[in-house]
Amino acid sequence: MKAAIVGATGYGGAELIRILQQHPEVTVQSYHSSSQWGGSIVDSYPHMQAVSGKELKAISHEQIAQDADLAFTATPSGVSSKLVPELLKHGIRVIDLSGDFRLKDPRQYEAWYNSKAPDEVILEEAVYGLAEWLDTDVRNAQLIANPGCYPTAALLGLAPLVKHLPIDPASIIIDAKTGVSGAGRKAVPVTHYTEMNDNLKIYKVLEHQHTPEIEQVLSGWNSNAGTITFSTHLVPMTRGIMTTIYIDVPESITAEKLFELYQESYKDCYFVRIRKKGTYPSTKEVYGSNFCDLSLAYDERTNRIMIVSVIDNLVKGAAGQAVQNMNRMFGIDEKTGLDLAPVYP
Amino acid sequence: MKAAIVGATGYGGAELIRILQQHPEVTVQSYHSSSQWGGSIVDSYPHMQAVSGKELKAISHEQIAQDADLAFTATPSGVSSKLVPELLKHGIRVIDLSGDFRLKDPRQYEAWYNSKAPDEVILEEAVYGLAEWLDTDVRNAQLIANPGCYPTAALLGLAPLVKHLPIDPASIIIDAKTGVSGAGRKAVPVTHYTEMNDNLKIYKVLEHQHTPEIEQVLSGWNSNAGTITFSTHLVPMTRGIMTTIYIDVPESITAEKLFELYQESYKDCYFVRIRKKGTYPSTKEVYGSNFCDLSLAYDERTNRIMIVSVIDNLVKGAAGQAVQNMNRMFGIDEKTGLDLAPVYP
Amino acid sequence: MKAAIVGATGYGGAELIRILQQHPEVTVQSYHSSSQWGGSIVDSYPHMQAVSGKELKAISHEQIAQDADLAFTATPSGVSSKLVPELLKHGIRVIDLSGDFRLKDPRQYEAWYNSKAPDEVILEEAVYGLAEWLDTDVRNAQLIANPGCYPTAALLGLAPLVKHLPIDPASIIIDAKTGVSGAGRKAVPVTHYTEMNDNLKIYKVLEHQHTPEIEQVLSGWNSNAGTITFSTHLVPMTRGIMTTIYIDVPESITAEKLFELYQESYKDCYFVRIRKKGTYPSTKEVYGSNFCDLSLAYDERTNRIMIVSVIDNLVKGAAGQAVQNMNRMFGIDEKTGLDLAPVYP
Amino acid sequence: MKAAIVGATGYGGAELIRILQQHPEVTVQSYHSSSQWGGSIVDSYPHMQAVSGKELKAISHEQIAQDADLAFTATPSGVSSKLVPELLKHGIRVIDLSGDFRLKDPRQYEAWYNSKAPDEVILEEAVYGLAEWLDTDVRNAQLIANPGCYPTAALLGLAPLVKHLPIDPASIIIDAKTGVSGAGRKAVPVTHYTEMNDNLKIYKVLEHQHTPEIEQVLSGWNSNAGTITFSTHLVPMTRGIMTTIYIDVPESITAEKLFELYQESYKDCYFVRIRKKGTYPSTKEVYGSNFCDLSLAYDERTNRIMIVSVIDNLVKGAAGQAVQNMNRMFGIDEKTGLDLAPVYP
Repeated sequence: MKAAIVGATGYGGAELIRILQQHPEVTVQSYHSSSQWGGSIVDSYPHMQAVSGKELKAISHEQIAQDADLAFTATPSGVSSKLVPELLKHGIRVIDLSGDFRLKDPRQYEAWYNSKAPDEVILEEAVYGLAEWLDTDVRNAQLIANPGCYPTAALLGLAPLVKHLPIDPASIIIDAKTGVSGAGRKAVPVTHYTEMNDNLKIYKVLEHQHTPEIEQVLSGWNSNAGTITFSTHLVPMTRGIMTTIYIDVPESITAEKLFELYQESYKDCYFVRIRKKGTYPSTKEVYGSNFCDLSLAYDERTNRIMIVSVIDNLVKGAAGQAVQNMNRMFGIDEKTGLDLAPVYP
Repeated sequence: MKAAIVGATGYGGAELIRILQQHPEVTVQSYHSSSQWGGSIVDSYPHMQAVSGKELKAISHEQIAQDADLAFTATPSGVSSKLVPELLKHGIRVIDLSGDFRLKDPRQYEAWYNSKAPDEVILEEAVYGLAEWLDTDVRNAQLIANPGCYPTAALLGLAPLVKHLPIDPASIIIDAKTGVSGAGRKAVPVTHYTEMNDNLKIYKVLEHQHTPEIEQVLSGWNSNAGTITFSTHLVPMTRGIMTTIYIDVPESITAEKLFELYQESYKDCYFVRIRKKGTYPSTKEVYGSNFCDLSLAYDERTNRIMIVSVIDNLVKGAAGQAVQNMNRMFGIDEKTGLDLAPVYP
Repeated sequence: MKAAIVGATGYGGAELIRILQQHPEVTVQSYHSSSQWGGSIVDSYPHMQAVSGKELKAISHEQIAQDADLAFTATPSGVSSKLVPELLKHGIRVIDLSGDFRLKDPRQYEAWYNSKAPDEVILEEAVYGLAEWLDTDVRNAQLIANPGCYPTAALLGLAPLVKHLPIDPASIIIDAKTGVSGAGRKAVPVTHYTEMNDNLKIYKVLEHQHTPEIEQVLSGWNSNAGTITFSTHLVPMTRGIMTTIYIDVPESITAEKLFELYQESYKDCYFVRIRKKGTYPSTKEVYGSNFCDLSLAYDERTNRIMIVSVIDNLVKGAAGQAVQNMNRMFGIDEKTGLDLAPVYP
Repeated sequence: MKAAIVGATGYGGAELIRILQQHPEVTVQSYHSSSQWGGSIVDSYPHMQAVSGKELKAISHEQIAQDADLAFTATPSGVSSKLVPELLKHGIRVIDLSGDFRLKDPRQYEAWYNSKAPDEVILEEAVYGLAEWLDTDVRNAQLIANPGCYPTAALLGLAPLVKHLPIDPASIIIDAKTGVSGAGRKAVPVTHYTEMNDNLKIYKVLEHQHTPEIEQVLSGWNSNAGTITFSTHLVPMTRGIMTTIYIDVPESITAEKLFELYQESYKDCYFVRIRKKGTYPSTKEVYGSNFCDLSLAYDERTNRIMIVSVIDNLVKGAAGQAVQNMNRMFGIDEKTGLDLAPVYP
């Protein structure tokens, strides 16, 4: 199978290169960049010397469609919305890592992204690729909208509960913390080393564009689900997301029942690891891997459940899940090329 | 005025030395340590060379009481409970930085600290020293229980709301994040550099001993207040606490009213800075200072208020607030010796 | 005494504000910025709320000279060279924190800075302000060229040796390491958080503009001194410089003699701390303070001396030394306003 | 081929597990620990859940020799010296990651390690496993002494120069900087997070036990080589070593000739990457990989060469090179199982 990586010089693109370079079933044909084409990927990422010496090419839909079976578009929101329809027109399948094709309702997109939504027909067609909870057979999908990093962590944590227990969806509060790579490669003041080191920031308060993405999926799972509270923090570390989730349960349940539910729900999911009761994951424990680690706690004092989930935002939260989706699209075992042990410490 | 610092080799003690070394109204007579006495403070803290060359002395109640008007006990919980009564017996006033004298109910103490509570008479006498919300004139106090770092950040954020608005106290969720110095100076695996760097951890889930401290104060302020949810995370940074607080408001309010309430409540409090609407503090912005910065947001979509507060856990969350309390005890202007600009970046 | 801070929005300027805000003998009249004037300093530095609410003004030489006795120009190289002569013309004294007036030889400046040198008359007049080794009485100086951060650390380490021992100056190798704040406040790729965190970089190899500054001073101290080797590394930390210096000694000396020499040389220098034999400073041990800590070792196996010096690059390496120079210029005790204990941890 | 990992709970052991888990030609039969046996490796390293659930076994020489063809001993110096001879006696081949079998001269070992040297017969037999510069065919070796992390970085940087150019070996100065994982997993004060974060330390000045290891190899390569200067610094990052090396060249050479020499010397070495002239590696660019990146500069002003080398201390500096050595011992292509792209950012 042949793939092209579009947006190869961003962190998502670089992580796709790292993962696919070891994937036994895929050949990456070409890297594309809208800005830095002409030189080698090594000019942009010296760490790739001897790993990959591929040239960075301009983005030509025809060429990409001709050379590859699948394009990963690791391009920013607002770029993907224009690029992806062109690629689809040329008959190539696409996994898009931006936020452009995740929201079914164009008004939501326009309200949260401050940008024009893609064509509704394509939005309708796009499959939301939360790999453990796909609601369709993606072997026939033309376009997968790869989930956001935060929604991946939050939704994997919430799924069994929201689907199966009588919780109060309006009570859901997701306090999310991310490493700085989630903000991308562009040097801007807020993520200048000196401004971010030894510092903890809260950002995009009540304005994060992943809010409607989470709400859309939750209301698909539970008809009572509506708005939620979602907050995001920048933590002085490179990779990793932790979401700490709080939910009221109207009637008392037992911690044991909770664990059983989660273990049962994820028993066939290699990449979701339920942590032993009373232990909790740290972000470093999934560093560089496609795992999502989950812990649960039930507080009898307040009738509230706490869920803790961690992922590597660039792997399970972006490139890794994209490859997992690719595997499913092409009928390959989902672990193929993704069997990466976390890099610890 | 003459003071003694007991527990001088911990981080709280070292920060007391740093602050008091510039305080114009206090002479620190002696440093005391239960374990490392005999040498100079410089052996324990080389950064103090030329700043202070004082000897570390053993802990002798008589000697301390004879030499000083006030003792700061920056000793661990379980040590203070034994030490402080002895000091009081000798007639010296005490500001205790441990958790031992904060909880009025000994059963609460014993349940959360797994240790025997101090004598109830002394517990009764101890004044809880949240400096901006003291409910008594401390000029006559013999013992001040200096608040915990997390409760300081959380309670300063919650006070105006819990006291004056018809919120639902049971809905309060405090998602707290701390720098690692809060865990103390002892080298243990969880805070080994390699295990903590580039890593985010959640810890003491549903078990943190600051929970009942926060609840006790809230229920003093609002008769409807009972249990709350409080979670704690270790962030890879040295200093700083951020609490992100979520509260349901049964009826709609306006953001403007919220800001007015806070500005009015803290108009005479130099150390509490209300941030401009739409802006949010980062922990580094109070680094090394006694400030507590507060931001507010009201979410119309969910009828929920978010409060963000940050402090330096070793200053406003420990030694700085202790000095602020000392100033009040001795009728000195509360800013004296504490007018430290944040060290930024 | 009245001062103005020009370039108040850079890190050097901000540190001047922090230090001078507590200086008992100085009133800072105004802050100036070439780019961000019009608002308050708090817009640029939210951590200064309640500390300073001064307006940022444009740079008017007349106004500055009229309002203040002294201007600190914390402006970039290339800006100071134009600005300072104008200020001097208006009769105001200046301490310049850039590299523009440090090199006496304009050809050296032009070779290493790739920029036109200032007028030679002014270069001649400028006093190089290495505060512990001033070779003139600065009470009459009009212009002090405040030393670079690296030269400060290296030269304080080398002075006694180069002046008094028969070392081989050509053998001097200075391996320097700095925290990232030394690179300034501007967000650029090399100091983007994600590119710098958990990473160690070497930069400007054989090209660092502080090389001729160090060589100029050394050859003033020792007529045999010529070129040296100087390398610079970026360390993932905010503040701090360490220089590890290697020098051959043609004839054997004893470690004791070495320590005596240093202790004697710096016995009247509060800000230089000679560390106990066999112990070595870390950068955090001078964090936020004006200290320079020095350690020494003599290796009998190789007849080589190692000197280790650490400073806070923004304090002793910039704003702190500038204030120390101001104190000397105005006949004030050099410690005034600078008696800051290191912030540790 | 079957292998056992002894000392599986240290960082070297954990990294062996991570690498070998993907090695197509090796089956790891068992993990052994002297202290933590009885439970699963997941109890010690939660990040290994689903990756490896192997039990930690006690160290039984007989059992290990019976079950495996090769033992990796990732045990501390002083432990390996006793353990390895026992394993060899049982006929199993060994790759030892400690310092115990690297020095041929027992007096050197005893002087620098303060511990009794192993039997001279075994020292003689042990092959020093600097994989790119093996001086013997290791397909018959019984015991490989895997090089230290610093010597690996320094020697790969020095080899072509010391072997082929008329440099002055006595002039060699190696200024080395390491991430904190090099200090091991044990929680001790010097590497407590709060003491190490945002801090740079120099340590073991003139006392580092890797000094004689480097000298031994250099004098094997160049009969003029004797003592060198080697210094070591702790950098606030988890992984990575950079050595900055300075050497005098008695006669002038050209930078071009230097590059040619290095390119030629390493043209068949996949894991050594010569960086483009004028560019320099950072440690993160080899993070998680087995690469050693080298840069060169010749300073015409001082007739001095600078070499910069970086490795991941846990991979090329420990477990990765051990696997590379294993591949050579068993006649497997050296890249097998080690074709790991750096994890960046």
